[in-house]
Amino acid sequence: MLSENRVNLTMLTDFYELTMANGYMLNGVGNKTAYFDMFFRKVPDGGGFAIMAGVEQLIDYLQNLHFSEEDIQFLRCKGIFCEEFLEYLRHFRFSCDVWAVPEGLPIFPGEPVVTVRGPVTEAQYLETMLLLTISHQSLIATKANRIVRAAQGRPVMEFGSRRAQGYDGAILGARAAYIGGCSATACTIDDRDFKIPAAGTMAHSWVQLFNDELEAFRAYARIYPENCVLLVDTYNVLKSGVPNAIRVFKEEVVTRGFRPKGIRIDSGDITYLSRETRRMLDEGGFPDAGIVASNSLDEYIIRDILTQGAKIDSFGVGERLITSRSEPVFGGVYKLAAVEEDGRIAPRIKISENVGKINNPCFKQVWRLYDRTCGKAIADVITLADEVIDDTRPYEIFDPEFTWKRKRVTNFIACRLQQPLFEKGRCVYRSPALSEIRDFCRDQVGTLWDEVLRFENPHGYYVDLSPKLWDIKKDLLEEYSIK
Amino acid sequence: MLSENRVNLTMLTDFYELTMANGYMLNGVGNKTAYFDMFFRKVPDGGGFAIMAGVEQLIDYLQNLHFSEEDIQFLRCKGIFCEEFLEYLRHFRFSCDVWAVPEGLPIFPGEPVVTVRGPVTEAQYLETMLLLTISHQSLIATKANRIVRAAQGRPVMEFGSRRAQGYDGAILGARAAYIGGCSATACTIDDRDFKIPAAGTMAHSWVQLFNDELEAFRAYARIYPENCVLLVDTYNVLKSGVPNAIRVFKEEVVTRGFRPKGIRIDSGDITYLSRETRRMLDEGGFPDAGIVASNSLDEYIIRDILTQGAKIDSFGVGERLITSRSEPVFGGVYKLAAVEEDGRIAPRIKISENVGKINNPCFKQVWRLYDRTCGKAIADVITLADEVIDDTRPYEIFDPEFTWKRKRVTNFIACRLQQPLFEKGRCVYRSPALSEIRDFCRDQVGTLWDEVLRFENPHGYYVDLSPKLWDIKKDLLEEYSIK
Repeated sequence: MLSENRVNLTMLTDFYELTMANGYMLNGVGNKTAYFDMFFRKVPDGGGFAIMAGVEQLIDYLQNLHFSEEDIQFLRCKGIFCEEFLEYLRHFRFSCDVWAVPEGLPIFPGEPVVTVRGPVTEAQYLETMLLLTISHQSLIATKANRIVRAAQGRPVMEFGSRRAQGYDGAILGARAAYIGGCSATACTIDDRDFKIPAAGTMAHSWVQLFNDELEAFRAYARIYPENCVLLVDTYNVLKSGVPNAIRVFKEEVVTRGFRPKGIRIDSGDITYLSRETRRMLDEGGFPDAGIVASNSLDEYIIRDILTQGAKIDSFGVGERLITSRSEPVFGGVYKLAAVEEDGRIAPRIKISENVGKINNPCFKQVWRLYDRTCGKAIADVITLADEVIDDTRPYEIFDPEFTWKRKRVTNFIACRLQQPLFEKGRCVYRSPALSEIRDFCRDQVGTLWDEVLRFENPHGYYVDLSPKLWDIKKDLLEEYSIK
Repeated sequence: MLSENRVNLTMLTDFYELTMANGYMLNGVGNKTAYFDMFFRKVPDGGGFAIMAGVEQLIDYLQNLHFSEEDIQFLRCKGIFCEEFLEYLRHFRFSCDVWAVPEGLPIFPGEPVVTVRGPVTEAQYLETMLLLTISHQSLIATKANRIVRAAQGRPVMEFGSRRAQGYDGAILGARAAYIGGCSATACTIDDRDFKIPAAGTMAHSWVQLFNDELEAFRAYARIYPENCVLLVDTYNVLKSGVPNAIRVFKEEVVTRGFRPKGIRIDSGDITYLSRETRRMLDEGGFPDAGIVASNSLDEYIIRDILTQGAKIDSFGVGERLITSRSEPVFGGVYKLAAVEEDGRIAPRIKISENVGKINNPCFKQVWRLYDRTCGKAIADVITLADEVIDDTRPYEIFDPEFTWKRKRVTNFIACRLQQPLFEKGRCVYRSPALSEIRDFCRDQVGTLWDEVLRFENPHGYYVDLSPKLWDIKKDLLEEYSIK
């Protein structure tokens, strides 16, 4: 596991988490029990849903949270932290309760995908790494899922390491891409650590190193006849690359008792080149040889070239996947939702002139209602933590913005989406195998209606509030707007 | 140093680097001396130049390059690598020569910013991590430099950790942002490991935790009177936040013998709110209290709100800096440029139907010509490695695309831009302190003409080829286009 070797990331935190923690302690409120939610505000790329990812790394982080003597010495030198606080850090032991929705689940704006309950000093401290971890992987899993759906069943390989934003951008990005539906990665360390199949054959430099393309192809095919994919665009795809590939397939692959895997095209007009290449391979006796396309692909280009009749069997997708280039930020936030006071849970809200920045108060949970007959997801409902949605009786949902929009739901199954990760600081969750998460993602995306799956202008999936929660939120909004 | 604790990243490599390396060995060409260049193709955001960054981490990586027994066992299980190759990996010792331009230098498309010479197996292997490291940090340093220039002398703090693409995205992104000109970061680990000043005060959750805003501000000011920056937008900036802040400044800060640092606004219309806030602070007796603005800023918004007369003293910039949101990919590539054959250096070229994908062949170096009188950068010239530009005599430069465009340069100083990092695998470079790199960046950006500094439609800086290099390239292009 990557995390076992890892540098301790406890100090990867916004400095204000530390100044606030010190301040909470000095104000005597550090042990106040607080409730924080992580949610996100907007689906990237204008899509209909995102894919949850990063829970396993969040758990790793929380299990390893500790301050070294070096950290404490460093903080002491800042001259603003009291010794009592530094002593507290020295003996820091994580003691919060944490709930999260499982990796691979489609998630929607505004719903709490992670909830933390515990002493405010601790619960606040998690903010930076929790957001960083979940936002990054959810961003890439979401993008991967779009690209994989655009490919309509053709395998998509993640090829982006070299263009990732940092090492974890590559390593954990490839993990997230696999959750979202990619079938392989070029990133070798992901095969070693996460069992994601590593794939890849040759670069242009292989072809260039030899005296000519034919010699380069021969040299490769002799060594890898069972897995022979030749890169045909170093000089000229149709005049040189494909004819040389066909010749080498015949002379070096078939003669060794194998069938060639195919060719890869990494530049030029993929639609035209793939159609011509397909014809040449077929006429050359290799209708079973596949065509891999790469070169700045994303879901839009893949959809376009397939619509144009490109003959592609699999895709290698790099920079536009590993950075989610068209929308590289996942707007995850972590907000205080409630505080325990005199034995009761007091709700908290953040008002904003940007209405989208207002959060849902209270200790909550989130439910998904599935149609009992067809299995499709009907709506999500956010309730108070102690509410139960009784799915043996009809349930009325209503839009929290346009409250006159109501719908009576019958014949449904109500599932709680959050699962406990930590109880009083002890991990109680066992992450599924990555392949199971990937399967779960595929199945759960399958519960969404086509309208929600659209790339552009999808139908807005319902994320509603229970009447009790809505009443509390409304009262708080009115209370603060009087000010 | 971060790198000392780091997980070994040797296996963070595209799988094809390994299949090619194994293939080179089996073909008996693994020890052939190859020359690779890293260059980039397009300045992000349509800007006039990029900023080089990441050299220190590239050196760390190269110094730590080794394969563990676990790595070798993992590769053996793939069933495609020969034992001779696995044995080679077990005893792998880096032996290449590496040159790079220094961190902080403005760099331009097409010029070799890193050059590697060595056995092709090794030189090829570096590709993934070299591109990942230099591209990521150069991307963020470039974006930071744009944002810092938009702020016109006002400090810019990097606030993006929570929205970064992975942990190194945050940590090394903050490092790169500092090189580009940011004055501080919210990311605590960067202060500990890189001595970048960490900054930050309070989140909305601080304000929400207390019974009301006034109580929250008081609690903060009592503990941090010397460094009191209050976040005023939790409920209502002008009706609640600023009046409460002024009251607390008077009652809790001034009474303790300090002047307040100021306030921070994180939502709403920054121009309007900052102007009103400035007036209220001035009238309240705090003309010296600063206004910090944050909330999805970038160079465009900063330029706009300053043009509109926003009263901002410093900026906190998060997601749009740490992901370079408007252009999150730095198109770095690593191409074979030459191979030693029979004692001579044979040039290599990659042809492409995408003309921009054609590389410059040969073992090269890159020069910058500075005006001897005003110090401004006139042009860069790429030459063969053994060419010398004699700056005691006039030098004629010409455009490599439009060769009739010629210019005779006089009264200039010619500087070689690349410096040796490794000689036969031994590190010979000592990275400057980060603050020196930052100063160097500022000074070197100062050598660029205003036309090159423009955010949009900048003047294209000249990157020319020496006549000798151009002749070789032209001959190769003609040779391959006949095919």
